Amino acid sequence: MKNSIIGYYSTKFGELWEQSLDDLILEAWNGILAETKIEKERIDAIFLGNMLGGVVEHALLLSAHVAELTGLQVPVYRMEAACASGGLAFQNANEYVHAHPGSTVLVIGAEKMTDSGAAEITRALATAASTDEQAVGLTFPGVYALMAQIYLAQYGYTEEHLASISVKNHAHGVLNEKAHFRRYVTIDNVLESPYVAYPLKVLDSSPISDGAAALILSSDQALVKQSRHVVSVLASELATDTISIARRTRLDTLEATVLAGRKAYAAAHVTQADIDVMEVHDCFSIAEILALEDLGFWEKGTGGAKAQEMSTHLKSGGNLIVNTSGGLKAAGHPVGSTGIKQIGEVYLQLTGQAGLRQVGKRTHGLAHNVGGSGGMAIVTILGV
Amino acid sequence: MKNSIIGYYSTKFGELWEQSLDDLILEAWNGILAETKIEKERIDAIFLGNMLGGVVEHALLLSAHVAELTGLQVPVYRMEAACASGGLAFQNANEYVHAHPGSTVLVIGAEKMTDSGAAEITRALATAASTDEQAVGLTFPGVYALMAQIYLAQYGYTEEHLASISVKNHAHGVLNEKAHFRRYVTIDNVLESPYVAYPLKVLDSSPISDGAAALILSSDQALVKQSRHVVSVLASELATDTISIARRTRLDTLEATVLAGRKAYAAAHVTQADIDVMEVHDCFSIAEILALEDLGFWEKGTGGAKAQEMSTHLKSGGNLIVNTSGGLKAAGHPVGSTGIKQIGEVYLQLTGQAGLRQVGKRTHGLAHNVGGSGGMAIVTILGV
Repeated sequence: MKNSIIGYYSTKFGELWEQSLDDLILEAWNGILAETKIEKERIDAIFLGNMLGGVVEHALLLSAHVAELTGLQVPVYRMEAACASGGLAFQNANEYVHAHPGSTVLVIGAEKMTDSGAAEITRALATAASTDEQAVGLTFPGVYALMAQIYLAQYGYTEEHLASISVKNHAHGVLNEKAHFRRYVTIDNVLESPYVAYPLKVLDSSPISDGAAALILSSDQALVKQSRHVVSVLASELATDTISIARRTRLDTLEATVLAGRKAYAAAHVTQADIDVMEVHDCFSIAEILALEDLGFWEKGTGGAKAQEMSTHLKSGGNLIVNTSGGLKAAGHPVGSTGIKQIGEVYLQLTGQAGLRQVGKRTHGLAHNVGGSGGMAIVTILGV
Repeated sequence: MKNSIIGYYSTKFGELWEQSLDDLILEAWNGILAETKIEKERIDAIFLGNMLGGVVEHALLLSAHVAELTGLQVPVYRMEAACASGGLAFQNANEYVHAHPGSTVLVIGAEKMTDSGAAEITRALATAASTDEQAVGLTFPGVYALMAQIYLAQYGYTEEHLASISVKNHAHGVLNEKAHFRRYVTIDNVLESPYVAYPLKVLDSSPISDGAAALILSSDQALVKQSRHVVSVLASELATDTISIARRTRLDTLEATVLAGRKAYAAAHVTQADIDVMEVHDCFSIAEILALEDLGFWEKGTGGAKAQEMSTHLKSGGNLIVNTSGGLKAAGHPVGSTGIKQIGEVYLQLTGQAGLRQVGKRTHGLAHNVGGSGGMAIVTILGV
C-alpha cells in the first residue's frame, strides 16, 4: 500500500523581515490545517526539516518549538542534512507511515536565513562542506563553481549555456505567487551579473530566503478517501556520498543523485519516460544540468546544449517540464523548506492546482533534493 | 516481532583533546564492527545523534561525514533533539527496522564539546531553551535550578538530598572504565563545591564531554541468531512538550517523561516492578529524582528521601539499580551520545557484560533520555 499526500501549504518565500522562525512554522501549521480541514488530533507524528536553527537562530530542540506551537505532544523528529533537510524529513516520514499503517503525519520544513549578515550566512552554509575544505577557504558557491568549470571545459560549453537555466526558472517564478523573485531575466542579464565564484554569477545562484512549507502524508484510508486532492508516493529514496569533494572520483556528476534515482525508479516501477513534471535541485545553474543528466533524462555531457533548447520550459510544449515553481533560483531557497516545497509543487501539478503554471499531461512527477555538494540526494516519485 | 540489539561499543567519554568529531565517529564505527564482527555491507541505514556539530564544530550534513568515514552510501539520518539526540536516533531507527523487516542498522551518537570555551559551550547548550528565555539570561543550569528550588521548597528537602544522587553516580562511575570521572565524591564534597545556579553546584551537574557510542539494531533473524549477545527492544517511545518552561503548568515534573513512560510500559507490556536496571537522564542531580518519580517508581514528592536512602546504589542490594554507567554526572555527557550510551549500558547489563558494575537479577531494563528541560523525552525498554 502506498502512502498518500493529502494536502500542501507553503508560506511566501522571500525576505520575510516581519516573521521569525516560529512565526513561519506557525503559519505553515495553520495553513495546512485550513487547507486540509483535518483536526489536529489526527496528527500522529511530525517531521521537521531545518538546517540552520542552531547556527544562526540560536534555536535547537526545534521539536519542542513545534510541540508548543501546535499544542501537540506527539513525536517530533528534526532532521538535518543541509539543503536536503526537507527532503530527508519527507523520506523519513514516508518510512514511518509504512511502519504505522493507518497513521497520518505532518511534514514541515522551515528556515529563517535573512536575520543574519551575508558573511555570517555564507559561513553558516559552508558548514555543509568538509571542514578541511572550509579551512582552506572553499565556500559553497566555490564548490559548485569547481563543478561548473570542469563541466564547461570537459564538454565545450560556455556560461551562456548555464544562463539558460536561470532564464527558464525566472520565467516560471513569475507565475508562482509564493516565489521569492517574480521577474523575468534575460541571458544578457545573467551574463552581466557579477561573479560570485567563476564561472557562476549572482544570477546563476539561488538566493538566501526565509520560508516554510508543510505537507500531510497519510495511510489512513478513510481520511485519504475524503480528501479532495490526493497523490500517491510511489517512492522516496536517498543515497549518500563523501563530504569532501576531493574524495570524489568525478566532479561532473553527483553520484548520490545517480544512486537515489536508480533506487527510486526501481521502487516506483517507472522510467524517466513516465515523468511529466519535475522539481530538481538548482542551487546553482550548473546543478540543474547535472541533475537532469544524473537522473537519466539527458545523456552525460549533453546537458549544456539541452539547457539552451529550453525544452523543459513550461512554454515549450515539451513532455517534461522542470522547476515550475521557479526552482531554488527564483522561488527561493529557505534550505530546510526546499525539499518539502519541491514535493509540494509536484503535488500541486499532479492535482491540477498549479494555476498559471499548470502543466498539461500529468500522471507522474519527481522531486530531487540535494544536501551540500552531493553528500546526500533524495529522489521522490509521485503519481496519480 | 521485536527488533534486537546485537552489539554495542563506546569510546571513552571525557576531555579527548586528541580526537576530532570525525575521529570519534570513526572509532565508534571500527569498534562496533570489531565487536559484532559483521560485514559493513550488512548495514542498511545509519541513524546519527548529534546536537552541536553545526554550532561549535562548523560541521553540518554530518550524514556525508558518516558516509565518507564508513565508505557506505546508504541512508544516513542525522537527528537533533538537544540532549535527547541519541535517544531520538535510536527511537527512529527502531521505527525504520519495523518498516523494513530483515534490516540491520547502525545507531551512532557523537559529540565533540571540549574544543570550545566555557562561555561558548554554555551559549550553545542554551539553544535548547526557549529563545525568549535565553534572551533574559536563563542558562541551562538556570532552568534546572528553578526546578530544584521549587522541588526543595514544595516537598521540604535540602541540598543534601540532591547530593546523594551525585555520590551514588560517582561511585558507579568508578567501576566504568569508559567514564569521564572515576572518583568517589562525598556528600560534603558536593555541598562544598561552588554554586553553578542556586541550589545546584558543580558536583550536582553533568560535565562537558567528548565521546561517541554505537549500537547495531537488527531484525535479520539469521544475523540475530548467530550473535553472541542479544537483547530485545520491547518499546521505544517518545513524547514532546513546550520549549518554554513558562508555558508549563508545573515545574516539579517533566510531562514528556510521564507520557513517554506510559506509552513505553503499555507497548512493552511491562510495569515498573519488572524493571531491574535503569539509566535515567541525570543532567543535574534534581533531574534523576524527577525522573524516578515521573517514570512511576517513586511517588511524587518522595524522591528526596528516597535518594538519600540510596536504594538504587549498586551496593545496596536493592531490586532496582539506577545509572550503573555513572549516569551523565560521572560517565560524562557528550550530548548526542548520551541516549545511545544509556541504551548500551542497559544492553551490557542485560547480557552480563557489565563487569565490575554488573547487577544481579536482570531481565528488563529501561533507558530514559531527555532533550532540553523536558521538551522531549524518550523511554526505551529492553528485555532478555
